[in-house]
Amino acid sequence: MANPAVVEATRGERIESAHRGAGAVVNADGEVVMAFGDAGRAVYPRSAVKALQALPLVESGAAGRLGLSDKEIALACASHSGGEDHVATARSMLAKAGYDERVLECGAHWPLGETEARALARSGRTPTAVHNNCSGKHAGFVCLASAMGVNPKGYVAPDHAVQREVRAAIAAMTGASLSEEMRGVDGCSIPTYAIPLTALARGFARLGTGAGLAPARSNAAARIRACVAAHPATVAGKGRFDTEMMSLVGARAFVKSGAEGVICAALPEAGLGLAVKADDGAGRAAQVMIAALILRFGGFDDGTAARLTRFVSPRLLNWNGVEVGRLRPAGPLA
Amino acid sequence: MANPAVVEATRGERIESAHRGAGAVVNADGEVVMAFGDAGRAVYPRSAVKALQALPLVESGAAGRLGLSDKEIALACASHSGGEDHVATARSMLAKAGYDERVLECGAHWPLGETEARALARSGRTPTAVHNNCSGKHAGFVCLASAMGVNPKGYVAPDHAVQREVRAAIAAMTGASLSEEMRGVDGCSIPTYAIPLTALARGFARLGTGAGLAPARSNAAARIRACVAAHPATVAGKGRFDTEMMSLVGARAFVKSGAEGVICAALPEAGLGLAVKADDGAGRAAQVMIAALILRFGGFDDGTAARLTRFVSPRLLNWNGVEVGRLRPAGPLA
Repeated sequence: MANPAVVEATRGERIESAHRGAGAVVNADGEVVMAFGDAGRAVYPRSAVKALQALPLVESGAAGRLGLSDKEIALACASHSGGEDHVATARSMLAKAGYDERVLECGAHWPLGETEARALARSGRTPTAVHNNCSGKHAGFVCLASAMGVNPKGYVAPDHAVQREVRAAIAAMTGASLSEEMRGVDGCSIPTYAIPLTALARGFARLGTGAGLAPARSNAAARIRACVAAHPATVAGKGRFDTEMMSLVGARAFVKSGAEGVICAALPEAGLGLAVKADDGAGRAAQVMIAALILRFGGFDDGTAARLTRFVSPRLLNWNGVEVGRLRPAGPLA
Repeated sequence: MANPAVVEATRGERIESAHRGAGAVVNADGEVVMAFGDAGRAVYPRSAVKALQALPLVESGAAGRLGLSDKEIALACASHSGGEDHVATARSMLAKAGYDERVLECGAHWPLGETEARALARSGRTPTAVHNNCSGKHAGFVCLASAMGVNPKGYVAPDHAVQREVRAAIAAMTGASLSEEMRGVDGCSIPTYAIPLTALARGFARLGTGAGLAPARSNAAARIRACVAAHPATVAGKGRFDTEMMSLVGARAFVKSGAEGVICAALPEAGLGLAVKADDGAGRAAQVMIAALILRFGGFDDGTAARLTRFVSPRLLNWNGVEVGRLRPAGPLA
C-alpha cells in the first residue's frame, strides 16, 4: 500500500506536485501517540541522528576533559553551512584533540550554504574536509578517539572503536537492532543504519526527556539539547530549516534534518519524539511534515503558533518575488 | 489510484527513496505507443516547452530578420547555467533587437550552475536578470516583440502580443486547450499552462518530425532542433542532464527539462514524442524516467546504448567518491 500524500505543492489553483510519506509521534515509553503511513518501515536516518551520535562524546566525559565549549558540542550535532564560524569551530575542536583537519575522513565539498559557498569562492580559496557539512560531527569523533586513547585513523569504519560506541548509543536510544544488513554508507563515509520511524521517534522522546536513561546519558542528552538551543545557527546555518525553527521556538523543540527527506525532533515539554520520512527523499516535504507535527503537538502559545505557519505552509516565490504557489500539509497532516 | 513507483534510489542493499510518476510515448498522429501512470493528467510543463515557446520567433521570420545565430536560437530554448558564454549570447540577442538587459522581466538569480555561480562570485560581481536561466528565452521574446513592431514592455503578461503568439503555438502543437483555469505563473513570471502528458508528448512528436505542420512551422521546428543539436552546452550547461544527453546522442534525441520533475523529448527518427512527470517534482526521477524511455525507443546502436546506461541508472557517490547507491528505473520502466 502506498503511503498517503502528506504534502502538496500548489501553483495557481492547481496541485503541481505531491509528496507521500510516513511519520510517528511516540513518547519515551514507546507508546505511539500518532502515526501515518508505514511508520514501522526502517529508514536510513542519515544526519537526523547526529545528536544521538554525539552522546558518547559527552557522556564519556571526553567533551569535558577536552574542554569543548557549548558551541563546539552544537557543531558535533550539526549539518552546517560551511561558514567561517563553522569552520573555525571545527578547527578548534580538532586542535583540542591534538589534531588538525588532515585527520578528517569525511571528504571535501563546497559549503552547503549557497552564501557561504560564494563567500569561499570570492576569497579565492577552495574547500577542504573542514568545510564538509559533517566536519563538526567528525571532529567530535576525533575528540572521542583522542579521549579514549585510540588512534583516530579509520574512525569512519563500522568496527572502529568510535563507531562501536556510536552504534551502541543509537541502538540503546531507539531500541532498534543495528545489524549489518541494515547498514549503508553515509555521504560522509560513516555507517548509517536503517531504523523504523517509530523507534527513531522513541529515541528522540528519550533524548528530549531523559526518561529511562542512566544519569550520565540523561545528563549528556540535556547538555546536548542546551548547547544546540543556545547555538541554533551552529547546527545548520542562517536561513536553513533547523536553525530557523529552533531560533523561533528555542529549547521547546529540538529539530534535526537528514538527507533524503528524514527529520527527527524532540518536544521535551510534551514528552514526545517525532520522526518523518518523505518517500521520495524531498527535504521540503519532510520540513512541512515535521513543522505540522511540531505545531500540533508542541503546545505553543498563539503567537508562536502563528509564527510557525510559515514553516507549515511556506510560500513559493518566483524570481521577481511574486507568490506563485505554496507548500501545504495534506491528508493525515491537513 | 496512485501512480506507480518508477524510480528507486538505493543505498547499500536497501531502497532508500522511491519516486512515483507518469509518462507517455506518442507519435505525431496522437497514437499512444506506451503510457504509464495517469498520463492524461494535466501538468505544468514549465521550461520543458521552451522549444515550443521559441517557434513563433523562428517561424515568423523574426529570427531571420534580426540575424540570430544558431547559438542564439539554441539559447532561446535554454535553461542555461549562467556561464559567461550564455550571458554574452543573451546580451547579443538583446542588442540585435535594439535593447539591453534592462528590458528583461524574468528577475535575477545566481547562476543555476554551481561552477558558474562561484565564478561570478569570484569575479566580485552579483547576478542580474541576464544570469537568470531563462534569459535566452526572454531575449527571444524581446526579439519577437521587436520584429513584430510592438513594445516589449509587459511581455510576460498573458495578454501581451508575444504571449498570445506563444500560447497559440503551444496549443496548436499539443492540441491542448490553454484556458485560463489551466494557467499558473512560472518562475520567470511568464504564464505556464497545465497540459496532459499525452498532449505534450504529441507536441514533441510533431516538433521532432514536422508531421502535419504547415511548412513555415515545420521548417522552424527543424531549425530549432538543428540549433540545439549543434549547441548542446548552450541549452543547459556542462555537466547538466540535457546537455550531456544531447552531447551523447546528437540530433537523434531532443531533450528539455522543466522544473518540478517534467521532461519532454523528441525522437525524430523514431517519429515519437515523450513526456514524463515525477509526482513529487524531483528532477533526478524525471531524468531516469526519460533516459529509460529514450533508451527503449531510440533504436540506438549497442555502443550508444551502453553509454546511455549512466543516465538510466546513475551511480550515487559520497564525498570520498565511493559508490553508496544508485538510481534505477522500477515498475513499468524496469
